[in-house]
Amino acid sequence: MSGEEAVGQDGQSISKKALKKQQKEAEKAAKKAQHKKPDNQEAGDIDKEDTSKGRYGVLPLNQSQERLQRRLYKVSELQPSLSGQTVWVRGRLHTCRSKGKQCFFVIRQQKWTVQVMAIQSETISKQMIKFISGVTAESIIDVEGVVQTVGQKIQSCTQQGVELHIQQIWVVSAAEPRLPLLIEDASRPEGEGELATVNQDTRLDNRVLDLRTLANQSIFRLEAGVCRLFRDYLTAKGFVEIHTPKIISAASEGGANVFEVTYFKTKAYMAQSPQLYKQMAVCAEFDKVFTVGSVFRAEDSNTHRHLTEFIGLDLEMAFNYHYHEVLEVIGDMFVNLFKGLQEQYAEEISLVNKQYPAEPFKFLEPSLILNYKDGVEMLRQAGIEMGDEEDLSTPNEKLLGRLIKAKYDTDFFILDKFPLAVRPFYTMPDPTNPKWSNSYDMFMRGEEILSGAQRIHDPEFLSKRAELHGCQLDKIKGYIDSFRYGAPPHAGGGIGLERVTMLYLGLDNIRKTSLFPRDPKRLTP
Amino acid sequence: MSGEEAVGQDGQSISKKALKKQQKEAEKAAKKAQHKKPDNQEAGDIDKEDTSKGRYGVLPLNQSQERLQRRLYKVSELQPSLSGQTVWVRGRLHTCRSKGKQCFFVIRQQKWTVQVMAIQSETISKQMIKFISGVTAESIIDVEGVVQTVGQKIQSCTQQGVELHIQQIWVVSAAEPRLPLLIEDASRPEGEGELATVNQDTRLDNRVLDLRTLANQSIFRLEAGVCRLFRDYLTAKGFVEIHTPKIISAASEGGANVFEVTYFKTKAYMAQSPQLYKQMAVCAEFDKVFTVGSVFRAEDSNTHRHLTEFIGLDLEMAFNYHYHEVLEVIGDMFVNLFKGLQEQYAEEISLVNKQYPAEPFKFLEPSLILNYKDGVEMLRQAGIEMGDEEDLSTPNEKLLGRLIKAKYDTDFFILDKFPLAVRPFYTMPDPTNPKWSNSYDMFMRGEEILSGAQRIHDPEFLSKRAELHGCQLDKIKGYIDSFRYGAPPHAGGGIGLERVTMLYLGLDNIRKTSLFPRDPKRLTP
Repeated sequence: MSGEEAVGQDGQSISKKALKKQQKEAEKAAKKAQHKKPDNQEAGDIDKEDTSKGRYGVLPLNQSQERLQRRLYKVSELQPSLSGQTVWVRGRLHTCRSKGKQCFFVIRQQKWTVQVMAIQSETISKQMIKFISGVTAESIIDVEGVVQTVGQKIQSCTQQGVELHIQQIWVVSAAEPRLPLLIEDASRPEGEGELATVNQDTRLDNRVLDLRTLANQSIFRLEAGVCRLFRDYLTAKGFVEIHTPKIISAASEGGANVFEVTYFKTKAYMAQSPQLYKQMAVCAEFDKVFTVGSVFRAEDSNTHRHLTEFIGLDLEMAFNYHYHEVLEVIGDMFVNLFKGLQEQYAEEISLVNKQYPAEPFKFLEPSLILNYKDGVEMLRQAGIEMGDEEDLSTPNEKLLGRLIKAKYDTDFFILDKFPLAVRPFYTMPDPTNPKWSNSYDMFMRGEEILSGAQRIHDPEFLSKRAELHGCQLDKIKGYIDSFRYGAPPHAGGGIGLERVTMLYLGLDNIRKTSLFPRDPKRLTP
Repeated sequence: MSGEEAVGQDGQSISKKALKKQQKEAEKAAKKAQHKKPDNQEAGDIDKEDTSKGRYGVLPLNQSQERLQRRLYKVSELQPSLSGQTVWVRGRLHTCRSKGKQCFFVIRQQKWTVQVMAIQSETISKQMIKFISGVTAESIIDVEGVVQTVGQKIQSCTQQGVELHIQQIWVVSAAEPRLPLLIEDASRPEGEGELATVNQDTRLDNRVLDLRTLANQSIFRLEAGVCRLFRDYLTAKGFVEIHTPKIISAASEGGANVFEVTYFKTKAYMAQSPQLYKQMAVCAEFDKVFTVGSVFRAEDSNTHRHLTEFIGLDLEMAFNYHYHEVLEVIGDMFVNLFKGLQEQYAEEISLVNKQYPAEPFKFLEPSLILNYKDGVEMLRQAGIEMGDEEDLSTPNEKLLGRLIKAKYDTDFFILDKFPLAVRPFYTMPDPTNPKWSNSYDMFMRGEEILSGAQRIHDPEFLSKRAELHGCQLDKIKGYIDSFRYGAPPHAGGGIGLERVTMLYLGLDNIRKTSLFPRDPKRLTP
C-alpha cells in the first residue's frame, strides 16, 4: 500500500474523516465494554434498551482464567450437513460490510473463510450491529451462530454453501484500527488495474500482516513440505540426520564472505556451509548423512536470489565405485520431491499461482543429466561466446535453462563435469583429464539450486589442492586429518531451500520464500 | 588413550620396536604395490613366486575411474544362508591377529562385524598373508571371500554364525599406522580395571575416530530419531515447520549472553532462541509452528550441561481457552517421543548402555504435572530451605528429580506455575495471583530440558513488562508491533536437543551428544 490512502474494511476507499469517526466509535464501544466486568465475560453495550446485552463485547485479556469446555468449530468444518446447528467459531474479521440495519462480515481462518450475517431483530439489537461494524479488520473474534445453507453460492468465501446467522460476537484480541497494510491489497496480483498493491519493503517491514495472505500461507506450508520430503526420502535411504557447528574457528572454505563473531576473548566465524563437517561425519563412519540448517554468507549481493542467511539442505554420501551413484540418489530425491509437492500441495500451488501466475514445474524421470561441455556447446550454438573452462554467468545460466526447456521440456536438469578451475579446492578432478572435475550443479528454471561433487578423500592430495587455492593448511588441520584414518570415496551436495521453493513456484524473488529475510540491507524484523 | 603406550591392532600391548617394524613392513608392501600400475588395479607383491599375485594390493585413489557392477554385500547380510557363496565386502579393518602362516581379521561396518580367515595355501601366498598383516587398523578394504558357517559361535563379532575365507583383499583407503586413539580403548567402559580408556579432550580432538565407537554411532542415530519423532508428531498435529533468522539486529531477549557479529558496516547479534520469531509466526496466522535450529549462548559456563551452541527444538501454538491445552500437547509429544525411542532404537540404547550403564528411562502416561509450589514443598520436607519465589538451583533441581522418582516412579515430569519473578518478560502472569505465572519447565532425570509458558499477547501489557525487565522498547519494536493486529492467546516451549538425548540415555556430559561440541574453551574441530 502506498501509505497515503485510507482504505475501509470492505476494500473501498473511504474518506479519512469517516474512518476516524468509525474508529472513535469502535474504541468507545470497546472501552465501555471493558469498564463493566461481570463474572466471566465483559458485557456489551450498557444501554438499558439493549436487547442483545450480554451477547457481544470485548473479552478480558486471556490469562487462562478458565478452561471452557466449549467446542470451537473450524471454518473448514462448516458444511451444509451442519445446517440448523448452533456453532462457535474463532477467527479473524476479514472484511465487514454494514448497511443500515444489517451487517455482513467474513471470518477468516488461514485459507478458509465463511460469511456471517447480522440483521437487526428482536434478539439482535441496533447497538450490537453498531458494535460489529466497529470491530477492526484482523481482530480475532469468537462468534456464535446458526449454520444456514444458502440458495446462491457465496463466491467470495471458501465455505460457499453456508453462512452463519449471528447470535453472539466477542472480541478476543482487537487489531489497531489503522493497519500498515491491508491483506486484500497484499493479496492482489501486481499490475491489475488501478487497485492498490503493496511493495516489497512495506510487506517485509510488516511481515506479520503480510504473511497472512493466502499466497504466503501457502508458500511457507509448501516450504515446510520441501524440508519434510527431503528428510523423509533420505531417512528411508539410510541417511542419518546430523547437526554441524555454525561457529567455526577459522574461515575454512577459502576465507572470503564469512561473518566474524566475537567469541569470548577471541574471534570466530559463522560457517558458510556445513561442508567440512558433513564430510567429517562421513569419515566418522556415518557414511550417509544429511543436515538442514542455517548458513551464512557475508556477500554484499543485492539480487533477487541472494540472502545473507538461508537454510541449507545438505547431504553427503560414501559411494562404492563412482560418484554417479550419489548423483543419481540426489536426482531421484528431487524427482520424489517434485512429485510429492504436486500431490500433497496442489491446493497451495494453485493459491500461490492466483497471485503469482507461473507455468507448472516440469521435470523428467529419471532426471536429465548433461555434460558441462555440451551445455557450453548449446550456448555457443545460440551465439554465446565463452571459453571451455569459463564458469556460467547468471544470464548464460538462464539462457541455458531456456534452451534445455525448449529441447527437453524440463525445468530441472543436472549439469555434470564442471571445469576444475571454477570449483572449490576439495573437488575431485576427472580421472582422465585434470581440466575437468567430478562435480555437478543442478538447476530449476535456469537457476542453480544445488552445487556438489565427489570430494578428495586423500589427505596429501587434498592438502596440495588446498594450498594451490591459497588455503592456510593449519586452519583446516582438523578437516585434513579426518582423511588420515581411512576415508571412503564420497560425494554430496548443498541445496538452497529458499531457492528451491522460489523456483518450484516460479516466484521472482527469494525474499518471498524466507519468513524473515536477511540481506545486506535488511536485519529486521 | 594416554598417548604414552603403544597398542597393537589386537588390543594387546606390544613393544614400540615391534610396532615400528610392523609399520615399516606394511609401508614397504604398500609402496611396492603403488609402483606397479596395471590396467585397473595395482598388483600385489611383485615377488615372482607369489601365487597370489593380482589378488591383493592397494587400489589407486578412487576418482570414479570406472563404474564397476560388482555387488558389495553388507556385513549385516552375511548369514549362514549364504554359505558357500563368494561375496565382496567393503569395510574397515577393525582388528587383525596373525600367527605364522595364518591371519584372522575383523571387518567392521558401523555396528556390524565379521571375521575373515586367511591361511597360507596354494592360492593364498606367504606374501599375501604378510601384506594383510601390514594393513593398518581403520583402513578401508575390499575383501572377496567365501561365506562359511562356523561350528562355534564367534563371540567377538555381530555375525556369529559365519566367517569369510579370503580370496582377495584390496586397500581402498589406508589409515595412518599410528592412530591418535584406538577404537577399542575409546569403546571401553571407564573404570574397568587397568585397560586404557580415552579422556574427553582426546576424544573431542580426534572426534572423527571417536565417533566410530558403537556407543557414539548409536547416540547420534538416536539423536536423529529425537528430531524425527518431534517433527513427525507435531506435523501430524497440524504444526507448520518454520525457519527463523539467526542474525538479529538487537540483543532482543534481555541483552546478556549474546554473541556479537560484524554485519557489513554495522553490528548484529546471534539469536539466543527463536522465541520472538516463532511467536511472530503464530501472530502471522500460522497458529501452530515448530522449528529445529541452532541457538547461541555466550555464557561462560563450563559445566556438564552447557554448550555455547546447541540445537533448539522449539514450538509455539495458539490455544482456545487455557495454556494447559498446549502443555498437554507438549506432554503427549514427549510421551510419544519416549515410546518411539524405546520401540525404534532399542538396539542403540542397549549399545550405549554397554559402555555407559544407565537405568532405563521411566515415564508416566499421561505425564505427571506438579505445581511449582508443591515441588518447593517437597524440597522443604526434605530439609531444603528456600523462598516461595526463589528459582530452583541446579542441586535442588536434581534433588527434586530424585524425590519425584522415589514417589512417582517417573524420570519425566512437568513443573507448572513458576514464580513470575524468575521468568522472562513475555511470560503471562497467573490470572488470580501476580506472584505466579502461567509458565512451566519440564525435567528429565532431574534436569531441565524444556522451558515454556503462555506468552503475553497484548502489546501494551507486553511493553510494560519489557520495560520493567529493562528491555529497550525501540529494539523490540517489530516484535511488540506483531501483537497490534489481532494476536491469539498462545503458549509454547523450547527444548534442548542435546540435553534430551543425554538425559534419555543417562549420559553424564552434554559433549557426548553434540557431534562437534562448542563450549567457551572449544571451537575445534
